[in-house]
Amino acid sequence: MKDLDRIRRPEPATIVIFGASGDLAFRKLVPALHSLACADLLPQKYLILGVARSPMDDQAFRQSMEKGVQTFGRLKGEGCAQWDAFASHLFYQPLVYDTLADYEALAQTLQRLEAEHDLPPNRLFYLSTPPHLYAPVVEQLGASGLAQNRGQFTRIVIEKPFGVDLHSAHELNERIHRVFSEDQVYRIDHYLGKETVQNIMVFRFANAIFEPVWNRNYIDHVQISVLEEVEVGRRGGYYDQAGVLRDMFQNHLMQLLTLTAMEPPAAWDATMLRDEKVKVLRALRLPDAETLRTHTVRAQYLAGKEGGLAYRQEPGVAPDSETPTYAALKLFVDNWRWQGVPFYLRSGKNLKTKMTEVVIRFKEVPHMLFADGGRPVTPNMLAFCLQPDEGFHLGFETKRPGAGMRTRSVDMSFHFATTFGQKALPEAYERLLLDALLGDASLFARADEIEFSWRIIDAIQQGWARGDGPPLSFYAPDSWGPDAADAMLAASGRAWESSCAEVHE
Amino acid sequence: MKDLDRIRRPEPATIVIFGASGDLAFRKLVPALHSLACADLLPQKYLILGVARSPMDDQAFRQSMEKGVQTFGRLKGEGCAQWDAFASHLFYQPLVYDTLADYEALAQTLQRLEAEHDLPPNRLFYLSTPPHLYAPVVEQLGASGLAQNRGQFTRIVIEKPFGVDLHSAHELNERIHRVFSEDQVYRIDHYLGKETVQNIMVFRFANAIFEPVWNRNYIDHVQISVLEEVEVGRRGGYYDQAGVLRDMFQNHLMQLLTLTAMEPPAAWDATMLRDEKVKVLRALRLPDAETLRTHTVRAQYLAGKEGGLAYRQEPGVAPDSETPTYAALKLFVDNWRWQGVPFYLRSGKNLKTKMTEVVIRFKEVPHMLFADGGRPVTPNMLAFCLQPDEGFHLGFETKRPGAGMRTRSVDMSFHFATTFGQKALPEAYERLLLDALLGDASLFARADEIEFSWRIIDAIQQGWARGDGPPLSFYAPDSWGPDAADAMLAASGRAWESSCAEVHE
Repeated sequence: MKDLDRIRRPEPATIVIFGASGDLAFRKLVPALHSLACADLLPQKYLILGVARSPMDDQAFRQSMEKGVQTFGRLKGEGCAQWDAFASHLFYQPLVYDTLADYEALAQTLQRLEAEHDLPPNRLFYLSTPPHLYAPVVEQLGASGLAQNRGQFTRIVIEKPFGVDLHSAHELNERIHRVFSEDQVYRIDHYLGKETVQNIMVFRFANAIFEPVWNRNYIDHVQISVLEEVEVGRRGGYYDQAGVLRDMFQNHLMQLLTLTAMEPPAAWDATMLRDEKVKVLRALRLPDAETLRTHTVRAQYLAGKEGGLAYRQEPGVAPDSETPTYAALKLFVDNWRWQGVPFYLRSGKNLKTKMTEVVIRFKEVPHMLFADGGRPVTPNMLAFCLQPDEGFHLGFETKRPGAGMRTRSVDMSFHFATTFGQKALPEAYERLLLDALLGDASLFARADEIEFSWRIIDAIQQGWARGDGPPLSFYAPDSWGPDAADAMLAASGRAWESSCAEVHE
Repeated sequence: MKDLDRIRRPEPATIVIFGASGDLAFRKLVPALHSLACADLLPQKYLILGVARSPMDDQAFRQSMEKGVQTFGRLKGEGCAQWDAFASHLFYQPLVYDTLADYEALAQTLQRLEAEHDLPPNRLFYLSTPPHLYAPVVEQLGASGLAQNRGQFTRIVIEKPFGVDLHSAHELNERIHRVFSEDQVYRIDHYLGKETVQNIMVFRFANAIFEPVWNRNYIDHVQISVLEEVEVGRRGGYYDQAGVLRDMFQNHLMQLLTLTAMEPPAAWDATMLRDEKVKVLRALRLPDAETLRTHTVRAQYLAGKEGGLAYRQEPGVAPDSETPTYAALKLFVDNWRWQGVPFYLRSGKNLKTKMTEVVIRFKEVPHMLFADGGRPVTPNMLAFCLQPDEGFHLGFETKRPGAGMRTRSVDMSFHFATTFGQKALPEAYERLLLDALLGDASLFARADEIEFSWRIIDAIQQGWARGDGPPLSFYAPDSWGPDAADAMLAASGRAWESSCAEVHE
């Protein structure tokens, strides 16, 4: 099962994972590297060096990672390299994140391992530490000389969240740029690693028939939904500081919006691609007090019937918290293509279903030929289903069998799993780790992209904090969200779609 | 199962079937009327009067028709009216087609039956006789006064073929028009009665996203295929005079072409709709000697391995016959929308599979963003499948799971049977008989439509007869047709599609 077709093999390199004793390394990073090894996509020679505060030896690290791969690995057994063969690439070094001497020790370990395994000093530093450590680690990498490129590349991958607002993101960018040049920096939004997210671009730009109608002349509005079933649960401490805008909108929903709205880049090139995305973010209309009231919705979930806690009862959450666990926004992209076309975004926790989709709702036919008792026909709809059941749906009108020429809405669909097999879709982290090794930053967020994304989120957060927003709404757990979100669309005669949900109400 | 939803109920009427002892009445017309009765779509009061040369009484006619309905009826048993109830509407009257006295007797029978059953003199004459009798029957109907409208309507339905060339069709029109006004005349092409054919119009004009790309800017070419598996068999005597152009192109393929190419009419109205279809036929470029050679293919099938006869060996066929059993044409519609877009048409007998489809092949993307080793991506394709497996296919590019941004062609599809059920599609004759009773001529061919359609067929037939055409090709039975047809498309770098065939080679 070599699903991640090889484009070219990355140069020999060492992957240094900071925060290697953490959850992300255990569940995602090492399992992804293991799948890449299985698919023979890693460099001919590679080392994986785990770094974290916990004291541990190589053997203990390998045992821990074996459990992670067994539980979370995508490719297991099926023609896969033996665990021992993979494990022999794994090493561990304890490190106190703000202690320069430990970085100097790390540098020595790297040199020793590279010498022992005949590897050039190509290094990919992966920061999966808590966010407050990003800047300190970067600065110590700088101070210890590790940031300097001594081989073909030295790169740094930085996990999300990247800042908590424009100010902090800008400051973090500045601190990183004092040590690394922008082209060394790979900011993760794992959404971009998803096949279905990349497919938005392929769908738009590898098919000639959609781009001509991909504009204000034919599109009525766009909907982007990222719905979660899970509650805040044990993440209350973090979540109450963040809220849904920072947790989901600044990164995931903005990515989906930019990919849907951007102009076709001239080439698949990190600079050209991200230039186009940034253009969309810059064109986002900043809300004033009036539009904050009518174009945004913020809400919290209530207690459930079966003992489910209300958000304000969750551990770590202030009992008078105003932090939204759900938000809906009506945004406009003020450019030639999108003028006047609303982009409706919503995301929240503790909802009816887990569903991620981008829906393009087209305008009505200009002139209705088939009078059906004056009933208007449903306009066309195109849905990108990111989950569940990854694929596309095209809603269109067909003739209702029988006399007359009455129409009915039906659905043409495509499902990845049917065509490519259930296991064919690589995990986001596989793709992103491989791209980082290959030096392709197309699917990583650039400094300006992150900052322009924060700009719109900040404008809303600050407006809400000033009291310019709508009152906080509440919604029942296991619902589709607050009534206010439905009302926002209903005000323009529209309604939320849930084309990709397995469970329709 | 009331599948043919009632729009409004037709006025009480008598349906007079000329040629009632023939195959069409047995297999199609009376079974269709029976299905309409089952679905409660016939007039509150109706009579069906069979007329033919054979001496027979009502009872014998009813018994014969019962067998036809049992064998060929669509709705049987399922909540259907009892046979006896339906049969009580059936009557029979022998008639010699060129004997005026018999028509006067027919008039008396009609008056008597209408009086007995309390029906107004609304009459639908259905001519399912051999074609050479169309004019004589019409003229006798005129002479006997039966053509005259004495109730709310008197209409005449005329079966295909309508003429054998422009001259004979024009003459037949003239003879009909001396007796009936054009709005009394309903010329059958049962293709227009098919749900899937009507759906071409619904698909185009009830969906806003296809019409913007439905033109020379986005469409590379159109393919219309009507492939048959059956040989000429016992129809050799007729077929050798007709050939595939008269048998299939003048009616079926031209209908599919006009529906695909026409401008949106302003309303679903027989005049406006047929005006648009005629405009397409008038815009068809007539071939000159050069294009006859390069833009037409004519071919006959050879003998099969398992004892299948070559066309020239079929009973009734001249041993040196030049009559084509297969033809392929490359036509152009010289108007603003279609200038330069080839319409490839093909039809033939004794081919690999029975398949009817209209395929729109779009142009390539203007600029390929995702370099895939320089391999061009497959342009989009939209297929209307008329049979087998009625539905739509939309071929588009999606991302191949894995590294890079390589694409793969996949298929979004819709199948009528899945959505509406296997038995949901009414037979063409149900729809057409109902429309004729309702006075909606939209799905019937108008005099000028027939003649303009013959004009292009004549130009090709006459060119071939003059020797301006390509040499007669031959093809193996159970094949996709002659090499020359493939070569005609290959000359422009194109190839025949068979998206709707169950069996792909």
